[in-house]
Amino acid sequence: MKLSNKVEAMQFSPIRKFNPYGIKAEQEGKKVYHLNIGQPDVETPACFMEAIRNFDEKVIAYAESGGRPELLDAAIDYFKTYDVELERGDIMVTNGGSEALSMSFISLLNEGDEVLVPEPYYTNYATFALMAGGVVKPIPTTSEDGFFYADAAKIEACITPKTKAICCLEPGNPTGNCLTLDDMRVICEVAEKHDLMIIADEVYREFVYDGGTPGTFLQLPEYADRVIVVDSVSKRFSACGARIGLLISKNKEFMSGIMKIAQGRLCVSTVDQIGAAALFRLPASYYDEVKAEYCGRRDVVVEELNKIPGFSAPTPRGSFYMTCKLPVDDIEDFLMFLLTEFEDNGETVMFAPAEGFYATPGKGKDEIRIAYVLKKEDMKRGVELIRLGLEAYNKKLGK
Amino acid sequence: MKLSNKVEAMQFSPIRKFNPYGIKAEQEGKKVYHLNIGQPDVETPACFMEAIRNFDEKVIAYAESGGRPELLDAAIDYFKTYDVELERGDIMVTNGGSEALSMSFISLLNEGDEVLVPEPYYTNYATFALMAGGVVKPIPTTSEDGFFYADAAKIEACITPKTKAICCLEPGNPTGNCLTLDDMRVICEVAEKHDLMIIADEVYREFVYDGGTPGTFLQLPEYADRVIVVDSVSKRFSACGARIGLLISKNKEFMSGIMKIAQGRLCVSTVDQIGAAALFRLPASYYDEVKAEYCGRRDVVVEELNKIPGFSAPTPRGSFYMTCKLPVDDIEDFLMFLLTEFEDNGETVMFAPAEGFYATPGKGKDEIRIAYVLKKEDMKRGVELIRLGLEAYNKKLGK
Repeated sequence: MKLSNKVEAMQFSPIRKFNPYGIKAEQEGKKVYHLNIGQPDVETPACFMEAIRNFDEKVIAYAESGGRPELLDAAIDYFKTYDVELERGDIMVTNGGSEALSMSFISLLNEGDEVLVPEPYYTNYATFALMAGGVVKPIPTTSEDGFFYADAAKIEACITPKTKAICCLEPGNPTGNCLTLDDMRVICEVAEKHDLMIIADEVYREFVYDGGTPGTFLQLPEYADRVIVVDSVSKRFSACGARIGLLISKNKEFMSGIMKIAQGRLCVSTVDQIGAAALFRLPASYYDEVKAEYCGRRDVVVEELNKIPGFSAPTPRGSFYMTCKLPVDDIEDFLMFLLTEFEDNGETVMFAPAEGFYATPGKGKDEIRIAYVLKKEDMKRGVELIRLGLEAYNKKLGK
Repeated sequence: MKLSNKVEAMQFSPIRKFNPYGIKAEQEGKKVYHLNIGQPDVETPACFMEAIRNFDEKVIAYAESGGRPELLDAAIDYFKTYDVELERGDIMVTNGGSEALSMSFISLLNEGDEVLVPEPYYTNYATFALMAGGVVKPIPTTSEDGFFYADAAKIEACITPKTKAICCLEPGNPTGNCLTLDDMRVICEVAEKHDLMIIADEVYREFVYDGGTPGTFLQLPEYADRVIVVDSVSKRFSACGARIGLLISKNKEFMSGIMKIAQGRLCVSTVDQIGAAALFRLPASYYDEVKAEYCGRRDVVVEELNKIPGFSAPTPRGSFYMTCKLPVDDIEDFLMFLLTEFEDNGETVMFAPAEGFYATPGKGKDEIRIAYVLKKEDMKRGVELIRLGLEAYNKKLGK
């Protein structure tokens, strides 16, 4: 047996690479603060399980390949709050945002085709592109310029005859970057000029702070034919284990191709769809509460990071991640120190080394990604442990 | 925008092609007996929803990419009843058997590679192969020879340098065919000789009638390194809408490749996994009851079909499908007649034209697939309607 070139080229999740050391530290009795993964501790709204508990059909039957009508209609009503008018046929219910992404790549990419993705990026995009026989090409950005990429010249410099789409995660993971509607328009103009599709991964849509307005590429109807939006209940409703995503496009030809794949895999979980329909019916106040909670967590992280001598933390404006340089040469070595040597009152901390979010070799070696998914006191203590760990690490290195 | 060659080459489900006419007949007030799709009316065991209702974690969190431990352990215990010893690492929980199949194809096929599948076959195999950049190559069988293919010469005649795997659905859809352990050994020997993998889709494992013994390719440990088993709760537990499948292999390199894809898509539905773990804990008596029910349904179908003058129905030994010739030249034309012109006391019937299960052009034009998924009186009436429809159709044609 020989595995396919596609799978040989795939990487194991770089975020999970240090998990064995985290587990070992916990087995040794240490408490580990997990700032490394995007699994929030926010409770899933009770309506999710309530709706499922009330589901009383005797046969758990196949759902429609495109999704159950009550979920499609709930999503249609949700998008009305963004002044976006959708029909059922514009939406496909998927196994999480993940399947929406892999279906999109399979539908657009031939062998060797390229998808542009601003770097640093959510690493699984590379897996989805490889599954489709294609490859991710980074649009390089830096922490110094605030990871900004909505610049025609910057994007066009990366386009080749093989480029088929631009995939943007907005608000961003790992950067916390946000696009304005004008930024989105710039990206759409480039796509129009070069006949590319836009795959807009908007799973963090509501998580925009400091007075920023949550938006969607669907608010630009003049580019509707080029826009594919990926959505999910995972982050918005803290329901990561409910594998419900949405793939949305007004492009009928694209949606028709997607339906062929969807019929092949039959349907998405019936009970999860029942629960997700209830989530999309939550009142607007829900988003305000959750946004206030995450914004408070971010503020705690920034405040604590700024206690590191000589360090000035950035203030990311969206999602629940931030990526920043630390005054350390080799972040992976520092993380290993935290997990295998360091402790403070029996406690230590994990973050994600940012190197794994870059395709360009050598980039991100001095950067970390923090997911501010834990409650404020835990975030405060987690970042404090980074600071204390840094002191101990520098002492060890004789600095 | 241009869709990828992969998606352009995919077909819409041929089983669903006649759905609009079925829906129209129902809107016109006709009762339609659905013998066309594999959605059983058997109740899902209550333990599925009970386990989910009792699930009380406040955060519906990501599950492990490989699956929740309680489901893996329940599956391990289930396989012990087949004298098959598995470890957690031999099993990957998937989004239905569908994802297990597409993951397998993506892991094994490069652009243009071939998977052998006995024809007629479950049509979605073609979709999964195309998704992976490969293609299905049929091993031709006929209703006259009982759709038999466990013959080395027959299989070897289809092998080319591009062949990477043999994919068999056992017991079969659409044929109802069953393999003995000796048949499986013949297929394994061919795979060994030509360095192929075997993808054994065993989602109907327990549905073997007339004293046949349910079996699995996993019972041939000497070929364990070549065997990939696909399993699912959909059919066995009448839980099609619970998207829980299993991908099982003792081949560590293969499972390691699969894990890369699995990490990319994060995990499978948490609540469905909770419910599925309860299903795998059902006592052996459950399988006996369900088997007796389906066997009784099959007998009713065969008995009713044999009332068609001059017709002799085959007696399929497994799954809950049968494919047989009808004394009609053009089955699709006959089905259109049933849905748009015929009725008996306000009732009519749908089946699946078998042509869609063949890749070879022209084959199956006079064959139908019947899914015996309805209770006995409904199956009896459904097949009666086929017979009455046939009389009316022949009268219309002047025969």
